Amino acid sequence: MSKKHAPWKLLKKAIASQDANRVEECIDSFSATERARAISRLTDEERALLVTILSPSAAAEIVEELSESQAAEIMEDIAPSHAAEILSELPSAEQADIVGELEEKEASAILSEMLPSEAEEVRELKQYPSDTAGGLMITEYLSYPSTFTVDDVIRDLRDHSETYTHFDVKYIYVTANHHTLIGVLPLRDLLLSPKEARLSNILSEKPVFVRTKTPLEDLKKFLDASAYTGLPVVDKYGELVGVVKRADVEEALGERAEETLMKISGIAFGEELRSLPLRDRTVRRFSWLSVNIFLNLISASVIALYQNTLSEAVVLAVFLPIISDMSGCSGNQAIAVTLRELTLGIVKPYEFAWVLSKEALLGTINGLLLGAILGAVTFIWKGNIYLSLVVALALALNNLIAVSIGGTIPLFLKLFKKDPALASGPILTTITDMCGFFLVLSFATLVLSKIAG
Amino acid sequence: MSKKHAPWKLLKKAIASQDANRVEECIDSFSATERARAISRLTDEERALLVTILSPSAAAEIVEELSESQAAEIMEDIAPSHAAEILSELPSAEQADIVGELEEKEASAILSEMLPSEAEEVRELKQYPSDTAGGLMITEYLSYPSTFTVDDVIRDLRDHSETYTHFDVKYIYVTANHHTLIGVLPLRDLLLSPKEARLSNILSEKPVFVRTKTPLEDLKKFLDASAYTGLPVVDKYGELVGVVKRADVEEALGERAEETLMKISGIAFGEELRSLPLRDRTVRRFSWLSVNIFLNLISASVIALYQNTLSEAVVLAVFLPIISDMSGCSGNQAIAVTLRELTLGIVKPYEFAWVLSKEALLGTINGLLLGAILGAVTFIWKGNIYLSLVVALALALNNLIAVSIGGTIPLFLKLFKKDPALASGPILTTITDMCGFFLVLSFATLVLSKIAG
Repeated sequence: MSKKHAPWKLLKKAIASQDANRVEECIDSFSATERARAISRLTDEERALLVTILSPSAAAEIVEELSESQAAEIMEDIAPSHAAEILSELPSAEQADIVGELEEKEASAILSEMLPSEAEEVRELKQYPSDTAGGLMITEYLSYPSTFTVDDVIRDLRDHSETYTHFDVKYIYVTANHHTLIGVLPLRDLLLSPKEARLSNILSEKPVFVRTKTPLEDLKKFLDASAYTGLPVVDKYGELVGVVKRADVEEALGERAEETLMKISGIAFGEELRSLPLRDRTVRRFSWLSVNIFLNLISASVIALYQNTLSEAVVLAVFLPIISDMSGCSGNQAIAVTLRELTLGIVKPYEFAWVLSKEALLGTINGLLLGAILGAVTFIWKGNIYLSLVVALALALNNLIAVSIGGTIPLFLKLFKKDPALASGPILTTITDMCGFFLVLSFATLVLSKIAG
Repeated sequence: MSKKHAPWKLLKKAIASQDANRVEECIDSFSATERARAISRLTDEERALLVTILSPSAAAEIVEELSESQAAEIMEDIAPSHAAEILSELPSAEQADIVGELEEKEASAILSEMLPSEAEEVRELKQYPSDTAGGLMITEYLSYPSTFTVDDVIRDLRDHSETYTHFDVKYIYVTANHHTLIGVLPLRDLLLSPKEARLSNILSEKPVFVRTKTPLEDLKKFLDASAYTGLPVVDKYGELVGVVKRADVEEALGERAEETLMKISGIAFGEELRSLPLRDRTVRRFSWLSVNIFLNLISASVIALYQNTLSEAVVLAVFLPIISDMSGCSGNQAIAVTLRELTLGIVKPYEFAWVLSKEALLGTINGLLLGAILGAVTFIWKGNIYLSLVVALALALNNLIAVSIGGTIPLFLKLFKKDPALASGPILTTITDMCGFFLVLSFATLVLSKIAG
């Protein structure tokens, strides 16, 4: 593949030309994968220009490729009336997500350019946290009063077929007075029923529904235990307010896993792509690194206390980074397992004892194995059994400490409503480094005459 | 919440009693979340017993809660005829996933107990890699010859309404001779068409489809760029062989992100729950730790080469773990960003130059900032400007090395078809540790007379 003609370079040129036809042709020639990659390579300015050049519906497709915060930045950069036109092309949940990221002033400016009913809907949706049924639900669903006949419904579908094109029409929702949900009908049942039948007469069972505040994890469990592809969402009065789709629940869980992945690697806010401005990327990464360097200084201060021991047996300096790194490895394994079990809801934040019981024996076995390896290599290298025992015991003991802390720290953080993905790692390594340095150097001090020289 | 009556403990007791009614009552009393947690807390033996006690359809619901490998283990533990009955209750894609995890002998035993047509389907499905359309697709879809009328379809739906209950009926697929896909009809269009119309006459556009070998990432991009909730999958002859649903694509991506998260934390195979047997957990974690301890010994050998320098200026031992840890932090940030960009398909494995161009300036800025902090603290502590400069320069330079290596290592591994999630971290820390130790100790050797003592 020649890099000269990389699709994203073609798009950059087309945008620079400000020729709407050329831009549209260029995008239409891309595969879905090429398009995503090309959009990711544009600068903020190029993206704002692209979205301005294109028709609202074509621009909406571009905006859907972006993260919510990137989309919000573009909406702030273009005219509110144009932003409103683009937003109107998106599903209600996405409109609310993007508007939720805007500054209050910008949000009002854009909402005032939208249809009042649409703006009202966005205002309502954005009040729900994004990881609840309310935050995930869409408002593009079909509901009919129970007094309607099958034929009434078919007539409505026909009359509004244009509007309903983008609806996820698999079920129709049946309501009684004041939008109270009383039943769900698969579209197929409608096809199989006589046209004159009333909806109230063909409803089979009590409707299954969730509440606006039902959290993401519960939605997942609920969907896994059933065959529904969408769930009606009711508010505290039992009124139907939206539908949450299985694919959207899975997507939200996938995004959360991606975010956790970034956070445990030290990307603050869980988001970085290299197309972001250098300043944002540098600041986000540095905010994490600056905390870590101070934590490192604290743990290294333990070494400073033992400079006398070290000057007698300078060989110990070889082992300090090994102890530090290996304890970090073991502890991070335990952190990852706890994070996953918390996500799956199969460990509760108060179950310290259960986690410790599961880590203790494992940590002891692996600690002894690792200690034996390090001790053996040390003995081969230096032929000093005391030195071997000091490093082997310190590593074994510190390994047990590391898995115990690693397994339980995310529980503590969760209990105190802190983000376990971002904070667990630095807390773990600070404690295990301090313990590890202390163990090696204090054990060594005890037998210093045997290992000095 | 009293731990004495934790739901999972009740389930354990009910299983121990081997009383089918009691077990069923217990499970029925659980919420979806409680059920998932309770099942996760059972031992392998308890799970096999549970699945044996329950009816095939109730057992299938339990099996769906488990990972494929856990489900496969249970299938091996129970009678093949019972396993076949349970599998028959699952969607075709899940059947194939579970059978794919079984030993060849066990798989044949179970398949021979299934309906021949069903067994054949499973054999065909399990040949496709799980991260392609073929591996993700289900075979429970509705297809009709183009010569059928709307009324023919409605009659078929009515006659088989029992069988189709678990189908995801949103579209019907229209085929010509030999199952060649020629069109897709939303069920709604069927509802709006006259009963005597032939399917060939109400098809609107050319059908959108994917191929069995289309990879997961492309399916995601394709679905993101469209409004379809399901895509027909055709084989190399253009014949319809299955349907891949949006929710299943999202779920597979979420699982992959979870797996990556576990792998970068050093959990081999990307899976561990604390309900797994101790032996499996210990072996999986140790397999990663054992590699790391040897890599650590290699990098620590650099320190061993500089024992003379260290014995002259023992204070340097304080800085070695700091340099090692900070470079690991910076490098891991870069690894995470590259992994994510690879997943999203917005960086290609050959784009080393692009990644380096994006990391170089960022690495220099953050390196200088971190170096300045470390240098300043060192100067305050020891008042030795030479020592300050040595550690500040070494950290700054090593930070640049770390982000350059961290950003590009996943690309190299991907290019050589290795798993970047599992191997990037250890390779990174080994190289940056060696470089970091070398930089501190060789700079220190240059000005040894000024910092010794």
